[in-house]
Amino acid sequence: MLPGIIGELQRALKQLPGIGEKTAQRLAFHMIDQGRDTAVAIIDSIDRALRAYRNCSVCNMLAETDPCRFCSSPDRDIRQLCVVQHSSDVALVDNTGEYKGRFFVLGNLLSPINGIGPEQIRFPQLMRLLSEPGIEELILALNPSTEGESTIHYIVHHLQGKNYRITRLSTGLPFGSDLEYTSPITLANALQRRYPIH
Amino acid sequence: MLPGIIGELQRALKQLPGIGEKTAQRLAFHMIDQGRDTAVAIIDSIDRALRAYRNCSVCNMLAETDPCRFCSSPDRDIRQLCVVQHSSDVALVDNTGEYKGRFFVLGNLLSPINGIGPEQIRFPQLMRLLSEPGIEELILALNPSTEGESTIHYIVHHLQGKNYRITRLSTGLPFGSDLEYTSPITLANALQRRYPIH
Repeated sequence: MLPGIIGELQRALKQLPGIGEKTAQRLAFHMIDQGRDTAVAIIDSIDRALRAYRNCSVCNMLAETDPCRFCSSPDRDIRQLCVVQHSSDVALVDNTGEYKGRFFVLGNLLSPINGIGPEQIRFPQLMRLLSEPGIEELILALNPSTEGESTIHYIVHHLQGKNYRITRLSTGLPFGSDLEYTSPITLANALQRRYPIH
Repeated sequence: MLPGIIGELQRALKQLPGIGEKTAQRLAFHMIDQGRDTAVAIIDSIDRALRAYRNCSVCNMLAETDPCRFCSSPDRDIRQLCVVQHSSDVALVDNTGEYKGRFFVLGNLLSPINGIGPEQIRFPQLMRLLSEPGIEELILALNPSTEGESTIHYIVHHLQGKNYRITRLSTGLPFGSDLEYTSPITLANALQRRYPIH
């Protein structure tokens, strides 16, 4: 790591996801060298974002308003609720244009080994939301990982006997992929979930 | 791009080198979500770094002191001067442990097409430094690119007849590389600069 104040900046940047020691060094030097205006803009916009964003009291999504623009919109279909892990996943799902319902942000996935239990995934809050009338489908849009599977299993188990559908995202080959470079587990999923063409 | 204040943060982060739209979105969400402490640390350390770092009046390196720790050190060999493009290159060369002389930071490489001429590479300041007694070697540690070659050519041309050696970094195969994945120009350089084994 670099010495001095620039080393402290490097260490701070390195805490960001996907930023390693070398990238942090490059960014830190850029900020005090050619990128001073960028650095000032970043300080200013981080500061304003930290002040502006709070969790929506209905769905937990980080938003500038409470309730958020999804929970307060009369145009969203209240018959569907889509559960995601992160606030950023909301934008990803919304951007597909395939979904017009409402969202719920868990914040975490269940992970007993990391001390993340039902309270940490805001399950009680989800239950309250699901007790509102009119829900017809609960979509679990979670990562197909160990933690994602545990969380899906937990939620499904605790919602047995409810009169709405519970669905999850399909697993299979990503668009544009090549069988040769596809992991065996993905290929197995794609085979298990194969569907008739006509 | 994201809407609202987080979109402004995304745009600011996207100005950093090597940070694209998707990475900027991920970082922006992280900063207002789980990474709030990191975000505060980053604001603080950028702010302090912007205040602390200035160009050394001798070698131009960004440093907390003027003159910098290299220019003010009695332990550096004043017979050697190593010319680099960026302040960050100084750390890279110094970390090799192979060089104990002093540095000079050009800031840019010559690029007439981008309006970067001899004044923008601080050539007059380099000339003044080279006029000090005792210089025995000028090492041009610049990127082996079109702009790097132009700059090396320009400097060598304007320093003809001086009584010190002018050297440049060797070009050739990077350590650990594979001939099969080496570009033709690199392989050509490696061939041209081949050296006897004993």
